[in-house]
Amino acid sequence: MLEPFDDSYYMKKALQEAEAAYEKGEVPIGAVIVIEDRIIARAHNLTEQLNDVTAHAEMQAITAAANFLGGKYLQNCTLYVTLEPCQMCAGALYWSQISRIVYGAKDEQRGCGVMGTKLHPKTKILGGVLEQEASALIKRFFIQKRNLN
Amino acid sequence: MLEPFDDSYYMKKALQEAEAAYEKGEVPIGAVIVIEDRIIARAHNLTEQLNDVTAHAEMQAITAAANFLGGKYLQNCTLYVTLEPCQMCAGALYWSQISRIVYGAKDEQRGCGVMGTKLHPKTKILGGVLEQEASALIKRFFIQKRNLN
Repeated sequence: MLEPFDDSYYMKKALQEAEAAYEKGEVPIGAVIVIEDRIIARAHNLTEQLNDVTAHAEMQAITAAANFLGGKYLQNCTLYVTLEPCQMCAGALYWSQISRIVYGAKDEQRGCGVMGTKLHPKTKILGGVLEQEASALIKRFFIQKRNLN
Repeated sequence: MLEPFDDSYYMKKALQEAEAAYEKGEVPIGAVIVIEDRIIARAHNLTEQLNDVTAHAEMQAITAAANFLGGKYLQNCTLYVTLEPCQMCAGALYWSQISRIVYGAKDEQRGCGVMGTKLHPKTKILGGVLEQEASALIKRFFIQKRNLN
């Protein structure tokens, strides 16, 4: 049976991106952007490799999606990201006027929720999709990192 | 007499960047990043040319400065920017742990102050340096844009 194109389906694609980050020694966070059941951007965190705090998965995905669409606004798009966006990424999503944000695990320390970052009035947000998987991958990364140091 | 290397001196450099943005039809905002009296990054807003909401002057300056320094943290650096940073840029500056932010004009609508964006505890912020010049340039841009439409 074919898998339906639902939130879990796209979050699995974002998790694949997070795994790619993991394999590069990056904090494992991945993102995809979808319009009309089509993935138009895939990205994962590259802050270590690029030595750049702005290289979060979401930021790269926003740039890639706008490039694909030929316009800077991401109306009718949904971002799937394995961890709740931070202030920077939520701020970028604000400017993009994206229609929907779906995240996996909540970031209780630095997530846009606890930090009070404002989203665009046009943007809906939903958390907790494949939360366990997203959270387990991040925990595994930090346990391994601790053991290596 | 040589100009002293003070906040006004570097803000003038940021204003030159803002003027470069103006000439390209971009909202005229410019930024420079300074470490030990040396400018290590210059950038101006390119959101229209790049079709990318993330292409604010500050974001490009952060990436360029980290590239110059060979590390992603901007300790001992000062960002000079002609307009108060937005949520996205303040969020990026949070991650960079930059020592100091100096801005020209206040952004009463979308600035990090009114939006409540958190800065890093290590970061000091000062506004109002060459405020009139920064503000006048932005106002001139929007008046001209209105007249063209």
